[in-house]
Order: sequence, then C-alpha cells, then structure tokens
Amino acid sequence: MKVVIVGGGAGGMSTASNIRRLDKDAEITVITRDENVAYSPCAIPYVLSGKISSFDDIIMKTPEDYKEVNIDVLIKSEVTAVDSSKKTVTYENADGEKTIDYDKLVLATGGNPFVPPMEGVDLEGVFQIRNIEDGRKVQQWAKTSKSAVVTGAGLIGIEIVFALKELGLNVTLSEMMPQIVPRSLDSDMADILTGYLKMENIHVMLGEPITKLEGEDGKVKKAYFGDGSCIDADMVILATGVRPELELAKMAGCDIGRWAILVNEKMETSVEDVYALGDCVESQDLILQANTISHLGTTAVRESKTLARTITGKKSNFNPVLNAMVSKVGKLEFGAVGLTSSFAQQNNIKPIVEKVEALTRARYYPNAKPMDIKIICDCNGRIIGCQIIAEERVAERIDTMTLAITQGLSCFELSNVEFAYAPPVSMVTDPLVLAVEEVSKKFN
Amino acid sequence: MKVVIVGGGAGGMSTASNIRRLDKDAEITVITRDENVAYSPCAIPYVLSGKISSFDDIIMKTPEDYKEVNIDVLIKSEVTAVDSSKKTVTYENADGEKTIDYDKLVLATGGNPFVPPMEGVDLEGVFQIRNIEDGRKVQQWAKTSKSAVVTGAGLIGIEIVFALKELGLNVTLSEMMPQIVPRSLDSDMADILTGYLKMENIHVMLGEPITKLEGEDGKVKKAYFGDGSCIDADMVILATGVRPELELAKMAGCDIGRWAILVNEKMETSVEDVYALGDCVESQDLILQANTISHLGTTAVRESKTLARTITGKKSNFNPVLNAMVSKVGKLEFGAVGLTSSFAQQNNIKPIVEKVEALTRARYYPNAKPMDIKIICDCNGRIIGCQIIAEERVAERIDTMTLAITQGLSCFELSNVEFAYAPPVSMVTDPLVLAVEEVSKKFN
Repeated sequence: MKVVIVGGGAGGMSTASNIRRLDKDAEITVITRDENVAYSPCAIPYVLSGKISSFDDIIMKTPEDYKEVNIDVLIKSEVTAVDSSKKTVTYENADGEKTIDYDKLVLATGGNPFVPPMEGVDLEGVFQIRNIEDGRKVQQWAKTSKSAVVTGAGLIGIEIVFALKELGLNVTLSEMMPQIVPRSLDSDMADILTGYLKMENIHVMLGEPITKLEGEDGKVKKAYFGDGSCIDADMVILATGVRPELELAKMAGCDIGRWAILVNEKMETSVEDVYALGDCVESQDLILQANTISHLGTTAVRESKTLARTITGKKSNFNPVLNAMVSKVGKLEFGAVGLTSSFAQQNNIKPIVEKVEALTRARYYPNAKPMDIKIICDCNGRIIGCQIIAEERVAERIDTMTLAITQGLSCFELSNVEFAYAPPVSMVTDPLVLAVEEVSKKFN
Repeated sequence: MKVVIVGGGAGGMSTASNIRRLDKDAEITVITRDENVAYSPCAIPYVLSGKISSFDDIIMKTPEDYKEVNIDVLIKSEVTAVDSSKKTVTYENADGEKTIDYDKLVLATGGNPFVPPMEGVDLEGVFQIRNIEDGRKVQQWAKTSKSAVVTGAGLIGIEIVFALKELGLNVTLSEMMPQIVPRSLDSDMADILTGYLKMENIHVMLGEPITKLEGEDGKVKKAYFGDGSCIDADMVILATGVRPELELAKMAGCDIGRWAILVNEKMETSVEDVYALGDCVESQDLILQANTISHLGTTAVRESKTLARTITGKKSNFNPVLNAMVSKVGKLEFGAVGLTSSFAQQNNIKPIVEKVEALTRARYYPNAKPMDIKIICDCNGRIIGCQIIAEERVAERIDTMTLAITQGLSCFELSNVEFAYAPPVSMVTDPLVLAVEEVSKKFN
C-alpha cells in the first residue's frame, strides 16, 4: 500500500507514525514545503522568550529519524497537482518536478496565516508566525528592535506579545474585537487576563483594528489605528488567525464545507481513497452538533489515530470536539473548554452561568492563589462550558471539565463527585465543586 | 425542630452548617469533647513542619462564629448517654450533667486512634495525633528531642515523619506491612515513594512491627523491633489508624456492620430519627459494591450535604465512594483512587495493569518532571484504579480519573477523550492518555 501524505505538521507526521505502527509494510511518503518536520509550533513563543534555549530543542525528530522507520520525508517540496482519478500527486523541489502514484492520499495541508488587508503589510519587519523559520526571523529582528505591535489577541498573539515583552521590547497587543481571546473566553474572564497583561506593562488596544503601517527605508516604523492614534513599531506580528489551505482538496474534487474540507467520522473525504485531517478539515462540535473548525494540535494528533486505523482497515470513529485549550503567559495559566456564554447565545442556547473566585490551596496554606472559574450550563443544568484562570493547577481542571462535558454531566451531578484533597494542593471543597454548587443554585 | 449533633469534626460541623443553610429555624446543638471545632486535622503535619506558622491558623471558625448563625456548640462536653426511645441525650462538662431532648440526633463520633498492644506505650513522649491539642504537645516535645520513630506508614504517618525530619530530628518510619501506604498504593508505586523518603534521610523499616518501647525516668528512649533491632527514640508517634467510636450508636440501638454504623444512602441509621456520618459509618465501595470504611474528610463533608437534606425533608442520595486521595511530602505529590491491584485480587477481580513514566511538561520545556502513573482495569477494560506520583500536577489528574471511574469508563474510551495542551503545563499526549493507551494494548 502506497500512502502519500501532503503536509508535515502535527496531523501529517502523526498520521505517518501511526500508520507505521499498524502496518509494517506500507510505503509511506510525506511531502512538505517546510524545512523542518515534527516540531512543536506551540513552543515557538517560549523559544522567543528564552524559556526554551533554542529552536533546535523543539524539533522532536528529523527526516533521517523517520527514514529509520522507513517513512520517506520530502522537505522543501511543493505539491503542485493532485489527480484523484489517476491517483497521482505531482510535486516540485530543487530536483525538479516529479509525479508519483498513491493508493491512499492524506491531505494534511493545514492553514495559511490570514493577512489583514492594510497598507504597509509588505514592509520589512512585518511577520507572520507559521513555522520555525518565521520564529528565527522574528528572534533575529527583535534583537535590534525597541518596540513591537502584535495584532490579533488569540492564544498565539498573547503568547508572542508576552515573549517580546520578556525580551525587553515596548509591546502593544492590538485586537479588533472589544476583548482578548474572544473564541475561548467570555469578556468578564478575558478582562482578568487583560488586567494581568497591563500589569505586566503590555499595552492593550481593544476594539481598534490597525488601519495602516508606515515605514522608513522599507522597514516598518509606525502602526495607525482606527481611532487615528499611532504607535511606534520596529516590528509588527500578524497573529490574525489562519485560513484552511484547500487548493489541493479542490483539485482532488473533495467536498468543501462552510470553512474547510468535509470529512466523516472515519476521516474520509468525499473522494475515494482521499483522507484529510488537522487545520484543513471541519470537525463536529459536541454541544452544537454542527460543524466547526478546531485549530488545536491535540485535535490533529487525535484525528491521526482514527485516520491511521481507517487506512489500515481497522475500526475507529473520531468523536466530536470541545476545543479544550490551555495556555500560560508569565505567571498566569488560563484554559477553557466548550462554549462561551456569548457563543452559546449566538447559537440560541440560553446560558445559565456562574463565576466564582476560589483558592488553589487551603486558605491557611502558604501561597494559596486566587482561582477564577466560570461555569456555563444550558437551561437543563447540563454543563456546556468552563473557563479557568489562576497561577497554578488550571490545565488538569480543564481536563476534568472536558470529561464531565463529554459525559453530558449536569452541574448537579458533578457537585456530587469525589475530589481528592490535601491542604498543599487543593481546598477541602474543590474550586470546581464550589463553582458547580453555585451555578446549581440558579436552578432552584 | 431540635437537632443534636454529637461530634465537632468535619462531619458534625459541616452537618450543622448545611442544616442551617436549608432551615433558618432549626435549633442546632453540637456537643464535642474537644476544645476546638472546625479546624483542619489534615493540616496538623504542615503546622508541625513549620510550613503553616501556627495551629491557630488552621482553625477556620470558633464556637462564637457558630453562635452568630444560631448554632450552639458545647465544647469540652462528653455525651454519656443516648436514649432513642425518649429521644434524649445526656452530657457532662464542667457545669455538671444535663439531659436534653432531640427531634433529630446526628452521630458524628468519628474514630479513636488504635493503640497497638506493646510494652511501654504509656511512657511520656509517646503520642497519638487526634486533634490540635495533640499537635501542640508533639510540637513542644519535639523541641527537646533528637530522634523520633513514627509507626504506621499511612498518609498521616508519612506526613508526620516528614514534618519531624524537617524540624531536624533523626527519624524512622516503621510499618508492619512490607510496604508503605498499603491501603492506597501497590508495592511498585509505594517503592518509588519509599525511595524518595530514604533519599530525604528518613529511615524506613518495613515488615517489622515495634515489639516494645523502653524508657528512662518515665520518658521513652528506645524502640525495639521484631527482628531484635533497636533504635533511639526521644519520641514515638502512633499513626496506626483509627477505630470507629460506636458506643453511643450501640446505646441508641443502631445496627452495626462489620466495622461501623450502618446507614442507608440518606445517611439514616436503623433507628428512627438517628443519623450518622463520617469515620463512624460504613460507606459503599463503588467498584466492589460492598461496604467499606472511608476515613477521608472529603467523604464526611459530602455526606453532610446529604444528611442535611434528609433531615430537612429534601431528597438526596449519597453515592458510593472511590476514596480518592492525594498528599504531598516534601517535593513529591502522590495520589490514588479506586482499587489497588492487590486489593482487586483479594476481591477476586483479575486486574489488568500498566505502569508508565511520562513527563509533567513537554520534554523540551524547562523543569519537566517525571510522572509515574499506574492504571488498573478489570478484565473488560473498565478502569477501576489509578495511582500517580510526581513533583507537580497529580491532584487534578486523580480527579479526572475519579470522574472517569465514576462514569464507568474503559481505558479504550478514556484514550479518545480530549485533553488540553500547552508546553509549559503538559505533554501533547497527556500522561493519562499515554497510560490508558498502554494498558489498552494488553486487551488486543
């Protein structure tokens, strides 16, 4: 069986490895335009900040490592054509153009950074962060910069702006929407995070898009905002999200949904022997039971398990997603899962919400930190979302809530579940239990 | 409605508070032989070690605080008789003897420390740790001591021996069984913890009970073991467990089970208008569906919610328990939930187990620590137990596993659940997922 995988990100490389585990004999070829594979893009901000000492540290495997398990990785190679009737893929690299056959084709083409339409976006010093090479360029440019503007206050934007602040730059985070992290946090929770960023000397501009960038000698120098204000900027990072790359999928004849490639629960596209996963496909939202986009590496990794089983003739269904996420900026950890209350409302679900402030340890134990928790339920008390911010112990609580939501638990049911306790690590009544008890009272 | 509660521990005081929340008018009287109520006994070791500066810090509320919400707390008062036909309780204190009526009686009498039968147990310098007063005595005695032996390597024993070590004493932990924490950990996991304690200069004696204590001028000086060896001991702590206090329950005519008072899921005893909770009752084990004893403060607190609802005429059922626990000694956090594999075997369940070593953060992120996880499944793959040891992020993972076990999940099902990821706080495939994936392979 000849498997050709287009794309060397989390989805593509995990698929290659998972197929190899299930089938010793498959001929597996990965084609990627990038220079590096099997690195952790989520780690780029932490290399920039200096927490991780080098970009080389976040590369987990080289093409040579894959060669050892008989997986061919063609780097710096661009797939230019797919013919799903002849079952061929054509690619170009330094050696020229070549067309190869496939039995099974996997599209793991990911997404392209969205470049907002604005004057000056082509100036030197304006960056996107797609891969390690971009990371290295930003690192280099930052060395001679005094000020930076990051536009787009999603996870990557916040992590990057914090990293540049830690390098000593004067930094501004600019977001078109009236709050940061609009996809995962409600505005009251986002405000807590914004307060922390401001306390850390990050200038936060909300509700104002950048209208144009102005340069000197071809290098960016100033950013102008919708309200007419202007900020010095020796560098500008566009963290305004990614758009699924669909060109090859369209060429292959795959059905495309509202945003991305349509796949079924086996990760099959509408075209026989063509599969897809990761940032270029639509997933099903567990709560809305409607299609969504999940831009998480963890989703791609989990999809790759199902895809590898499907291709090797084994049963597996990929479950709908909740988009559980966590991040850490400076001292603060924040995470979320499920729907925000505003997103619930947009989808005609009336949210019943409660926000509590608890502690990460027994109140008399040294260094107990405040923990803000927001719980979102539907009108029957079923938990549909949770957001947490604290200096410690956020990630695993998000995992507990993800499992609770996956299992369809109500706030009443979760308030009766056991939680482990010891003074140095929790409160006698866990913050999550306090939160679900409080929201439960709204149903009396 | 006159409610009389016997016992001022976690069970008794939480019941009083929870009844007050549900019924503004109930006359509530708590009778306790102790001087303090509403303190956290789990925190005593951390006061001893100096982590928490004073015993006063761990007292959350005084009898006067309860008076403010119209709850009468009679301290230093011993209940000497219960008459469940006349519905009266008789108690004695400095003011003499008094008999009062009740409409509802709650027995929250807890347990008494078990004193192993050995010569020299009455010497000065031999302590049990029941309450704050005991804690203060131990703290005082330790100031003039050079060496200490703690017998009984359950949670309290380990936390106390570590605290005395931190005070600079030469310490020995002695356990009759061939491993430490036999109730919660399998021997392979216990060995990891034992290794850490030894590295921290704690002498650990396993499989050898203390046979006698020897003194000088009435003060303990030496401990002798079954193998004839002898260790200097200026103080000895008996941490050999507690036995439920059942005297009043028997006087009231309550049915007693194998170990403790029998209650139904509403926390009712066999005698009308007599209720019980905490260390003096039997709970149902979720997996074995048989009675067990749960000596956890968290169990008592959860039982108090059901009991308060029952007494005030509201519906609530107390669920079977899994005994989820966590502790922290020095740098190391350890936790467990459900059955150990050895306990499963004793109960005719053939355990399918796997133990993995993962990391607490992405492997390239600074200060990623090893995390040891053991998963125990039954022969159908249903998860029935989990044990975790690491320097961070154990407690909440135990909570996630508690929820998974409560929901009856198999290792196959849990391996498909979403987990949140960011390099500073987890691995891209969560340690729990790695563990359940590994154990799943044993079913192929």
